[in-house]
Amino acid sequence: MRKRIRQWLEKNVDGAAEFLSLLIKAKSTAGYEQQAQDLIANKFTSLGMDVDIWEQGGNELLKHPYFVSPRSDFAGSPNVVGIWKGTGGGRSLIINGHIDVVPPGELGQWSKSPWSGHIEDGKVYGRGSTDMKGGIVSAILAVEALKALGIKLKGDLIFESVVEEESGGSGTLATILRGYRADAALIPEPSGMVIYPHQQGSMWFRIKVKGLVAHGGTRYQGISAIEKAIIVIKQIGELEKERNLRLASEPLYRGVPIPIPINIGKINGGSWPSSVPDLVTLEGRMGVAPGEKLEDAQKELEQSMLALQNVDTWFSKHPPTVEWFGARWLPGSIPHDHQLMSILTEAYRKVLNEDPKIKASPWGTDGGLLTQLAGVPTVVFGPGATEVAHYPDEYIELKRVLEVAEIYALAILEWCGVE
Amino acid sequence: MRKRIRQWLEKNVDGAAEFLSLLIKAKSTAGYEQQAQDLIANKFTSLGMDVDIWEQGGNELLKHPYFVSPRSDFAGSPNVVGIWKGTGGGRSLIINGHIDVVPPGELGQWSKSPWSGHIEDGKVYGRGSTDMKGGIVSAILAVEALKALGIKLKGDLIFESVVEEESGGSGTLATILRGYRADAALIPEPSGMVIYPHQQGSMWFRIKVKGLVAHGGTRYQGISAIEKAIIVIKQIGELEKERNLRLASEPLYRGVPIPIPINIGKINGGSWPSSVPDLVTLEGRMGVAPGEKLEDAQKELEQSMLALQNVDTWFSKHPPTVEWFGARWLPGSIPHDHQLMSILTEAYRKVLNEDPKIKASPWGTDGGLLTQLAGVPTVVFGPGATEVAHYPDEYIELKRVLEVAEIYALAILEWCGVE
Repeated sequence: MRKRIRQWLEKNVDGAAEFLSLLIKAKSTAGYEQQAQDLIANKFTSLGMDVDIWEQGGNELLKHPYFVSPRSDFAGSPNVVGIWKGTGGGRSLIINGHIDVVPPGELGQWSKSPWSGHIEDGKVYGRGSTDMKGGIVSAILAVEALKALGIKLKGDLIFESVVEEESGGSGTLATILRGYRADAALIPEPSGMVIYPHQQGSMWFRIKVKGLVAHGGTRYQGISAIEKAIIVIKQIGELEKERNLRLASEPLYRGVPIPIPINIGKINGGSWPSSVPDLVTLEGRMGVAPGEKLEDAQKELEQSMLALQNVDTWFSKHPPTVEWFGARWLPGSIPHDHQLMSILTEAYRKVLNEDPKIKASPWGTDGGLLTQLAGVPTVVFGPGATEVAHYPDEYIELKRVLEVAEIYALAILEWCGVE
Repeated sequence: MRKRIRQWLEKNVDGAAEFLSLLIKAKSTAGYEQQAQDLIANKFTSLGMDVDIWEQGGNELLKHPYFVSPRSDFAGSPNVVGIWKGTGGGRSLIINGHIDVVPPGELGQWSKSPWSGHIEDGKVYGRGSTDMKGGIVSAILAVEALKALGIKLKGDLIFESVVEEESGGSGTLATILRGYRADAALIPEPSGMVIYPHQQGSMWFRIKVKGLVAHGGTRYQGISAIEKAIIVIKQIGELEKERNLRLASEPLYRGVPIPIPINIGKINGGSWPSSVPDLVTLEGRMGVAPGEKLEDAQKELEQSMLALQNVDTWFSKHPPTVEWFGARWLPGSIPHDHQLMSILTEAYRKVLNEDPKIKASPWGTDGGLLTQLAGVPTVVFGPGATEVAHYPDEYIELKRVLEVAEIYALAILEWCGVE
């Protein structure tokens, strides 16, 4: 069977590259996913799957505590789910991929158009190639191969092509609220062929640090919010140390300098060179451990800011304020000995004749929502290279797309069972 | 004579308040000085002075190393100089005041319109009342009183009402380039009745600190420009300490915690909460000692930034860049035993029956240009209160305006000599 799967894949590599190229050309940045989702829906239909297409919305979604998006209207941005109904008696599996891509950024930094989708030296180029249309194509190829070989699965296979992952996961949240569940899930995000049973969650914070304005010529009459912000930044560093110490014995983080970093990404303060600044705003991303709750991590940062009054009396009357805004990804974690892990590991060994690398991901995916909110144990594994995701001249290697397709096909067979 | 001057002033206080009110109502923010300058020019004419009115410009001004302004076209923003020609044999005196005022800022913070010019409880309110139309009115009153009493001065009195002080002094620079010089100068800036023989200069700097971008989830792969900026800020603090130590024995700075501060007024860095920031920009104001050259102070800051490579190897390949931009005020200093100082001190004692406070100003005025560039020894002394300059509900006390008028009148008599 493995041999027949590989032969089918090798015969269909050109068609797969062509389909991936079309998906890239569809330019599916947030708000413009329709064309790419049509391609996916047609593919599902042509494979004989039941197809569910809907534009998310409604209060259950918009008022959900884990809803994060800069928009509330999703007209023209449908989610697409293809269902390959099993014959019964097997385990069900969700395959989840996001069709939205981040904006291309400065066009001048790209060698060709970000939407070229051109194929060269075994690579397909363009925004979304690695993150994560290449991964979606791997999983589609796996399904196509199994279908072409006349396989009948026992468990259901639910293929979700969602919007909004890059904005915080409201597409996957919508599939959960619509009732989609399975015994496990696979996400072909660009993991660089590494298997991630754990994934770091993250959320954005905004901290405001107050000072007292004065003329720069008599700056000793004021309190510099920049100087106070330096104390806040130091305190955040202490908290980061403390939080990461707890993960020191976690084998999947061995060799990782800072498993769950707290990154300060933006600083803005003051309004005039010759005035003492009375406000500094810090914005950053707090990593959340795979087994941790967002709410607990939030509390830790908030309490660490309150504790600053023991460091500097200024903070007793002017405590820094903490706000949680923008993007947020739930962490996710499944046991090392979960059966999906052994099946995936074994499939990897069969296809690539070596042991896979198994790690905890340094970023979040929609797998956090699936694992923590929907109770669907999720593993992230895909062909894309993390290094080129979100960068100019993003590409994916077709060789990796095929390897992951083969591994997915074997894993689906094992997990769902064959009639 | 002193008695007659005081009597004349007391009789004319209402007219003076009215004239000050009109000057405030003329809303002379940068670019809108015409109306206020017309009032001044008419006043000079009515006093029998020769009046020189011109709109500054031309390459000699615009390309001058000390030219600082956000604009290069001064149409509608004339300078006005009134000359009271002496009979000969006396010392000449410049009185220099700026007619431009800073913008009122948030109107909601003002109890009445910033342009009301209303008079209440012996105070005149409005933007520019203290800084420095009140001071200009003091000096005009002094001239009016002397004229009314039939005085004939031996030395020339040159009264300059300039534009652009708040933007860096190009109005006074233009008077110097036009050839105006005198044996000394008085500036009735809001010194709070303190006599300033020394004034701090200042200039703005912009420092760019580089980092290396990376995803926040693997922030250890990047170099945070915020962390590097903290090292830069610390280094600036060391330089400030070093520079101020040199002024420790200067009597006019006794009790001043930081005579020439280096204020960091703005910080901006990073573009995304979950990216490691690769650039932080600091903007600030560097105080320059009364006897120091701007160029020497600049060199010190630049060399201190270069020396950072001994603190952190990152700076060897990525030295912070220093740029001098925006406003700039030359420092100024005259000897403690300069005769204008003794004349002014004596006049103060006569009018107020107490010794004046003599200090070094914590900010610059156009006096730096007069002293350093034109070689005209300049003292700053005026009725306005520093604390309300540039603030909402700015006001000036009429009592102080009269006191300074009397002191100026006596000082003019002594300095210029009477026929």
